[in-house]
Amino acid sequence: MGNFFEDFSIGQKIVHPLPRTITDGDVSLYIAFTGSRFALHSSDVVATEMGYEKRPIDDVLMFHLTFGKSVQDISLNAIANLGYAEISFPNPVYIGDTVSMTSTVIGLKENSNGKSGVVYVHSIGVNQNGAEVLNFKRWVMVHKKDKETLTGIKEVPTFAEATPICEEINIPEIKCVDVFASGGNFFFEDYEKGERLNHPEGITVDNSDHTLATKLYQNNAKVHFNDHMMKSTPMGQRLMYGGIVISMARAISFNGLQNAQWMYAINSGAHANPTYAGDTIYAYTEVLDVIEHKRDDIGLLRLRTIAVKNQRPEEIESPKDKDGKYLPNVVLDLDYTVIIPKRKTQK
Amino acid sequence: MGNFFEDFSIGQKIVHPLPRTITDGDVSLYIAFTGSRFALHSSDVVATEMGYEKRPIDDVLMFHLTFGKSVQDISLNAIANLGYAEISFPNPVYIGDTVSMTSTVIGLKENSNGKSGVVYVHSIGVNQNGAEVLNFKRWVMVHKKDKETLTGIKEVPTFAEATPICEEINIPEIKCVDVFASGGNFFFEDYEKGERLNHPEGITVDNSDHTLATKLYQNNAKVHFNDHMMKSTPMGQRLMYGGIVISMARAISFNGLQNAQWMYAINSGAHANPTYAGDTIYAYTEVLDVIEHKRDDIGLLRLRTIAVKNQRPEEIESPKDKDGKYLPNVVLDLDYTVIIPKRKTQK
Amino acid sequence: MGNFFEDFSIGQKIVHPLPRTITDGDVSLYIAFTGSRFALHSSDVVATEMGYEKRPIDDVLMFHLTFGKSVQDISLNAIANLGYAEISFPNPVYIGDTVSMTSTVIGLKENSNGKSGVVYVHSIGVNQNGAEVLNFKRWVMVHKKDKETLTGIKEVPTFAEATPICEEINIPEIKCVDVFASGGNFFFEDYEKGERLNHPEGITVDNSDHTLATKLYQNNAKVHFNDHMMKSTPMGQRLMYGGIVISMARAISFNGLQNAQWMYAINSGAHANPTYAGDTIYAYTEVLDVIEHKRDDIGLLRLRTIAVKNQRPEEIESPKDKDGKYLPNVVLDLDYTVIIPKRKTQK
Repeated sequence: MGNFFEDFSIGQKIVHPLPRTITDGDVSLYIAFTGSRFALHSSDVVATEMGYEKRPIDDVLMFHLTFGKSVQDISLNAIANLGYAEISFPNPVYIGDTVSMTSTVIGLKENSNGKSGVVYVHSIGVNQNGAEVLNFKRWVMVHKKDKETLTGIKEVPTFAEATPICEEINIPEIKCVDVFASGGNFFFEDYEKGERLNHPEGITVDNSDHTLATKLYQNNAKVHFNDHMMKSTPMGQRLMYGGIVISMARAISFNGLQNAQWMYAINSGAHANPTYAGDTIYAYTEVLDVIEHKRDDIGLLRLRTIAVKNQRPEEIESPKDKDGKYLPNVVLDLDYTVIIPKRKTQK
Repeated sequence: MGNFFEDFSIGQKIVHPLPRTITDGDVSLYIAFTGSRFALHSSDVVATEMGYEKRPIDDVLMFHLTFGKSVQDISLNAIANLGYAEISFPNPVYIGDTVSMTSTVIGLKENSNGKSGVVYVHSIGVNQNGAEVLNFKRWVMVHKKDKETLTGIKEVPTFAEATPICEEINIPEIKCVDVFASGGNFFFEDYEKGERLNHPEGITVDNSDHTLATKLYQNNAKVHFNDHMMKSTPMGQRLMYGGIVISMARAISFNGLQNAQWMYAINSGAHANPTYAGDTIYAYTEVLDVIEHKRDDIGLLRLRTIAVKNQRPEEIESPKDKDGKYLPNVVLDLDYTVIIPKRKTQK
Repeated sequence: MGNFFEDFSIGQKIVHPLPRTITDGDVSLYIAFTGSRFALHSSDVVATEMGYEKRPIDDVLMFHLTFGKSVQDISLNAIANLGYAEISFPNPVYIGDTVSMTSTVIGLKENSNGKSGVVYVHSIGVNQNGAEVLNFKRWVMVHKKDKETLTGIKEVPTFAEATPICEEINIPEIKCVDVFASGGNFFFEDYEKGERLNHPEGITVDNSDHTLATKLYQNNAKVHFNDHMMKSTPMGQRLMYGGIVISMARAISFNGLQNAQWMYAINSGAHANPTYAGDTIYAYTEVLDVIEHKRDDIGLLRLRTIAVKNQRPEEIESPKDKDGKYLPNVVLDLDYTVIIPKRKTQK
């Protein structure tokens, strides 16, 4: 089950099974899992007022439903999920759309001990019409079958420090943002590089919720839902899927970012420490950059959201200690870019 | 976060954010949370046979999805949710409808200690066409910002003892009730003022279920889902949202009230004691009144449903002790009015 | 509540209440409960490519939603659910369909102690157009009201050892199976009588998940969701609904049976030991028979799936010990027949 280092070759294309039709049921479950309140994704009236024909799917939900497909082929038996880069959300996804994913191997690096290696893939998710809805690169460490023979293979791709921002952004021209509907008064112009938002909410995650979510995403990495197996590991219990923490942090960031309803990109992310059932997730966000776009209805914010477990975010000054090591309660360090309308769209 | 006593003024109108489109996903989740078996809400065939074009949404689910919107503005930091009155459900809501809510401040009363006060609001929920779907009054105690200055404000509205019953009731003329579909043989004529129904079922609620429900309703009162915060309070754990108990009691009341498929009004309610994960909810119902209406296909029953935790309802004679204090296991005392077809509609 | 032995008579027809409209919400919840990955049920693209107009509902989900209706009348107070036979799934069910069920009493056998008896029923589920979607026989032991009088009634029906296979199978002609979509390369021709598949996944079930599922199915057998009551029984806690284990075993069997996406029949089943919250379910499958059909696009496999709790399936050689008693960790012994396309359909 799962692939070994030798099963991959540069340029190899992997069609991931299980195209998935996204439904109203998935959307309701996502709100139940996260408490997410971004109005664009929970109200057809808000979506049409803005300029959409109907509600688009929350980008993070779409990410999980699409990404989940690649676990079987790429990371089922991974020793470690090392990183991801250049994640972008090129087109909106709607209820009834069917998403699927293909990956191409873009790098391979044998570890010097000969026992394992790193596989780099470029994964592209499309909808039923072939339009790109997700695009990202990730790298995982996997076992070698033959631990005796050194191959010396070392082809390491380079990644952009941040997902490039395109000339064209595929969301409708924003006709108007009703601040009484979105719940937030802040527009692009109101954010400043360097400012920090401490989000007030904390949400506790239990075993049933996180395993229901991971199973909904058809992500079959067994560490997340096999308690019997995990009891014999140092963790001693089921590990929460890292995507759950991304979702909780994004939902919690609503307070202060109510009108930033689109993920444009994830530039990089670190799952600094594991989370388990019973942990309460908090978050704060730093504005890394304020980015103008040629479109005059919207701008972009590059954000860094730090998720913390069982500790209020205002108690954390920096996620790392003086030696550059993540503090034990920091569980996510996410660098991402959101789209936010300009004040002129305010109704 | 949240409003203080001084933030409110008589006549002030508050448009609550987050209009919400109600979907099949919400309906399925509601059945999963409660086990509700009222046929009108889970079968298109039953609904059309009765005279509907399609299944209407369960009134209590609609209440939660609409009410949840007002928490942020009215009660996020409430010291106490003191009461509600004159709740009515003026029009049915269907899948695909988008509900939103507005509140008007109708009363303010500073407490004599100067530290807090009571805010009274009148809240109206509408669908995407502006038709009223929920109408109620509630009052909450909130902190004052300036605890030193006494304002002496005291404008207290009066409330009807029971929600008035209108000449027109906005449900279709009931063409027929198939007792083999609804599961119940009892019609309006079969109930007598003063009779009591002990409902046999008890349902245990766990942390995942109640927090999933509260998050689905986008009710962000933190006492319900932040275990880290609650551990440092006298409760020591997450408090279940009172609406969960209303839903469970309503679902449990199915046995004996199978054909009373419409909430017409909630006249008053007391959340007598808190409920926590692991509690098993039981309920019994007293028929307070049997009310004829000018329509000859339906009548109304005024009911009092008492929900009890971890104790069979037949063991409780009255919810209060001889001093008028609620017994420790009583968790809800709900006075409400339901619509029930007359025997002539029986198929 | 619930029926006693004397309430049943041979030939008696029972129309079970609560016709149920099946929605996208039910389907999403089912995926969340089980992690099921059969592509036909989660992708409209896959379904139409195969020859369907749209995704059919997973047969096991449909079974639960339809079967749940009979609990109130047949088995609410059953002393034991003794068995079932000749379960078949005659027609596909789609989102939006409304299923309902009727049972006929086909056998009655008083127990020799005079205190209880066995009731045999034949249950038929239909969709809103009257097409049969589920057909099965089951027998349950129920209490007698009058434990003093011996009636001597003994009419015991006989059952086929396996559900007969019909000339016509009501699934569309399979146009093509895209193995990159279904995730599996094995077709009818690849299976051999006697072979065994150890499925690698184990899934832990918690109280919230299994009670949410059982409530969604509107199965109101109280042993599954009343913890207060169960604490005073030898079990000491809520018992998981046996159907949950069938669903988990079926979902886990995906690995190795990816293209066997249709339940044709359940021939027999034994719930060998109870399962509780916290148990991790594993499974293995034996191929009992390889069955040709006159259709040349498909064949059938008769399978025996053994579900085991808290033990890897490869550690179990046979589910029973040398005395023919089930091993303590075996929780399901299911004999069923699936449809699987032939290799010629491969795309």
